Amino acid sequence: MLKNYTPAEIPGKTEMKQRISAARARLYELQMAIKDSKLPVLVLFEGWGAAGKGSCIGRVIGDIDPRFYKVATKAVVAEDEARRPFLYRFFKEIPENGKFTFLDGGWMEQTCQEALLGSLEGNAYADRIDSIRRFERTLVDNGYLVLKFFMHIDRKEQKARIEKLLDSRSTKWRVSDYDRWQSAHYDQAMEVYDKYMTETNAAIAPWYIVDATDAKWAQLQVLETLVANIDVALQNSAHTSPLVPNVFQLLDMPKLADIELEGKEIDEVEYKKELKRLQKKLGKLHNELYRRKIPVVITYEGWDAAGKGGNIKRIAAALDPRGYEVMPIASPEPHELNRHFLWRFWTRLPKDGHIAIFDRTWYGRVMVERLEGFCKENDWKRAFNEMNEFEKELSDWGAIVIKFWVHIDKDTQLERFTYRQNTPEKQWKITDEDWRNREKWDLYEGAIDEMIAKTSTSFAPWYILESVDKKYARIKALKIIIERIEEALDK
Amino acid sequence: MLKNYTPAEIPGKTEMKQRISAARARLYELQMAIKDSKLPVLVLFEGWGAAGKGSCIGRVIGDIDPRFYKVATKAVVAEDEARRPFLYRFFKEIPENGKFTFLDGGWMEQTCQEALLGSLEGNAYADRIDSIRRFERTLVDNGYLVLKFFMHIDRKEQKARIEKLLDSRSTKWRVSDYDRWQSAHYDQAMEVYDKYMTETNAAIAPWYIVDATDAKWAQLQVLETLVANIDVALQNSAHTSPLVPNVFQLLDMPKLADIELEGKEIDEVEYKKELKRLQKKLGKLHNELYRRKIPVVITYEGWDAAGKGGNIKRIAAALDPRGYEVMPIASPEPHELNRHFLWRFWTRLPKDGHIAIFDRTWYGRVMVERLEGFCKENDWKRAFNEMNEFEKELSDWGAIVIKFWVHIDKDTQLERFTYRQNTPEKQWKITDEDWRNREKWDLYEGAIDEMIAKTSTSFAPWYILESVDKKYARIKALKIIIERIEEALDK
Repeated sequence: MLKNYTPAEIPGKTEMKQRISAARARLYELQMAIKDSKLPVLVLFEGWGAAGKGSCIGRVIGDIDPRFYKVATKAVVAEDEARRPFLYRFFKEIPENGKFTFLDGGWMEQTCQEALLGSLEGNAYADRIDSIRRFERTLVDNGYLVLKFFMHIDRKEQKARIEKLLDSRSTKWRVSDYDRWQSAHYDQAMEVYDKYMTETNAAIAPWYIVDATDAKWAQLQVLETLVANIDVALQNSAHTSPLVPNVFQLLDMPKLADIELEGKEIDEVEYKKELKRLQKKLGKLHNELYRRKIPVVITYEGWDAAGKGGNIKRIAAALDPRGYEVMPIASPEPHELNRHFLWRFWTRLPKDGHIAIFDRTWYGRVMVERLEGFCKENDWKRAFNEMNEFEKELSDWGAIVIKFWVHIDKDTQLERFTYRQNTPEKQWKITDEDWRNREKWDLYEGAIDEMIAKTSTSFAPWYILESVDKKYARIKALKIIIERIEEALDK
Repeated sequence: MLKNYTPAEIPGKTEMKQRISAARARLYELQMAIKDSKLPVLVLFEGWGAAGKGSCIGRVIGDIDPRFYKVATKAVVAEDEARRPFLYRFFKEIPENGKFTFLDGGWMEQTCQEALLGSLEGNAYADRIDSIRRFERTLVDNGYLVLKFFMHIDRKEQKARIEKLLDSRSTKWRVSDYDRWQSAHYDQAMEVYDKYMTETNAAIAPWYIVDATDAKWAQLQVLETLVANIDVALQNSAHTSPLVPNVFQLLDMPKLADIELEGKEIDEVEYKKELKRLQKKLGKLHNELYRRKIPVVITYEGWDAAGKGGNIKRIAAALDPRGYEVMPIASPEPHELNRHFLWRFWTRLPKDGHIAIFDRTWYGRVMVERLEGFCKENDWKRAFNEMNEFEKELSDWGAIVIKFWVHIDKDTQLERFTYRQNTPEKQWKITDEDWRNREKWDLYEGAIDEMIAKTSTSFAPWYILESVDKKYARIKALKIIIERIEEALDK
């Protein structure tokens, strides 16, 4: 689509002036509408080196109140970003509801650069395109306006601009090595850009090619596209997003009611022996994971009082504290609620070689948020797929993903609640909310059955930990974690 | 103090077991007391390479619920940390109220390593010690319990441990280059450690040397010290912290009432010409700052409707959006309120070579928080010095710090409020709170006079922008910024 792009004619000076000032005035008005209707707007600027991305962003934000936008430069991959999944460095920048984020360079630049320099090929490239499509789609599904501009200049123009920049000491540093390389390989880059843009030109987030030969003209094109898109997005605010069909291989999972809890127990002596042996083994494997930079994400969900905390403790005790972190997940804070529901998990991902243990997870979306009405029906229905896609990103990144459901029956829960209530130093562990949730046991059971059925993918399966005997559940968890790590290390 | 340290005798096996189990039980109880009384606890582990910091942290956290602590490894300075002031990477890790942070290596390790390897000497070393003392003191003054452990092993023991680690492929990577260097220069390191510990051994945050020859014994020493300190800190919770005298050179500043506002105006033609000229100049200087990696922090405070927003806009318009960020400061979010009041500013500092413009600032502490009772009297009284110390860190880091007070008189404010109220597209800019604040004009004026008098340091002075004519104020701001940048570039 870039190759056969023909720029429109540049308007005359007077017309340009009028249109720019009209679009600026409109954008100024719209910022309040965006705030009021809580529309988040993500504006991506991609394009040729020296096409003027930075100065164009500068002109556009001039009309927006600084409280309503952020600008992030994504040209260079920082050290902490390089140690996380590809989308991490972009997901963390998504705007809050009612605000703009302007990105100077983004997922296109990184992808095409890697493709051009040969570090991203074949299946990896195809997976990357899939990731990007899903990323843009889940943002739009969650109410984001995603705008993608490609700032275009022709080969001659680019060459001239780069030469001019290199000419002066005060602007020389602005030309990166990659800019030079690109200028010398303009046609080759054109092929890769064109292919990329064709592959990612979705109706929900189309590409806008901006003729960047003239800075004012470029500003006008961006402003008018921005304004038109915001107008449409504001009309869409009450809209629900279509569910997309599952494309991942799902494992056959039992319903909770069919899980045998009786007899899943271990005697004290055997437990102590096994615990010691398995923790020692896990500790050694942790070293090896660290050395080979393999990340691990372990998630815990389960009935209240099922024994999640004690289970996590036995895993943690085996690990070097410098290489793992337990992430206790409570209700979202305001700045978290104001973003895509997965944002607070994306930003909590471990570095490669590290282990993250989530004590409660993103699955809150299809349990408590679903049943308590904290999100809309359309939101939790879409979430099954969104969470599978999220875990696919983790798995493609190389992470071992292990999801535990810590399971007990209703009678066992009652016993433990009563014990907690009657034991002074345990009372903080039991709240009125726990009792209220217990009344909804059957509703939860239905939701959990649906969750486990729809999100047990081959790359991120659920494991049931029968925890009427907590010791049994701990040993089982250790064994599963060890098995999964050994499997990954053998590859 | 390290050089003449004599370890106590290790208790016998039975006694050790009993004491460990008593201390663990007590720590388990105390975690709830900590939560209830909102005590934040920062535990720093320093010490010799291979002394067992990691495994000791692992043993200690085993008794704490994962919701109540975080572990952070600070051995390696990350890229984004290296581009910010020294304390940034530690300040960002401070715990929330009611929680623990365990640091594996910290400001001692980094400082002594730099001193040993020769990159920190003379005045820079002395300034560093000052920074560290102030950092620890301001934490304690703000209710933090700060515990500093030094894990000690002798030369022979260290040598043996490192050799053992190097012996096996699975543990070899754990020995850093610096560990090897340290082992080869044990005596030299001892000198530097001893000096550092003597210099930073404050009553409010003393050093605890831990005999780390035996892992269980080390655990016991740490646990007992931890428990004893928490017991004391819990009794201190209602305590107010002493004010410390100002040690910085203060500039003579006028009272607001003495500032001449009349005649501070500029005509339209002159304004346009000057604005264009100065913005162009600032744009060029911004390039130069970026190239030379000099950071700039510009802060705006001022009366409501004084014209802060428009002033900031004229500065921002001159800058490359990739190199600056406007930080709009609203009321703190819960996770911000739960930490030292400067935490949300420390974590928003720009990278070197970048400009941060704060639209409202940390000075809220001595204005709105003081007058509305959002903090205690002792808190805002201490804040003058705490903010000076904060800005001293910025200045020592190499930042240009420019603080603006945008000034108008009471009548001008009334005119602007009325205009906003009567102009539909401006109404969002005026709230009931603005009218309520206006009623307290005189109280605010007194607080502001005190603030400007007490925080106009030679390294971070206040500048008054007379803004009855907003255009005059914008030109004045641009000129001040340009002057300060030119001054810094000339150095």
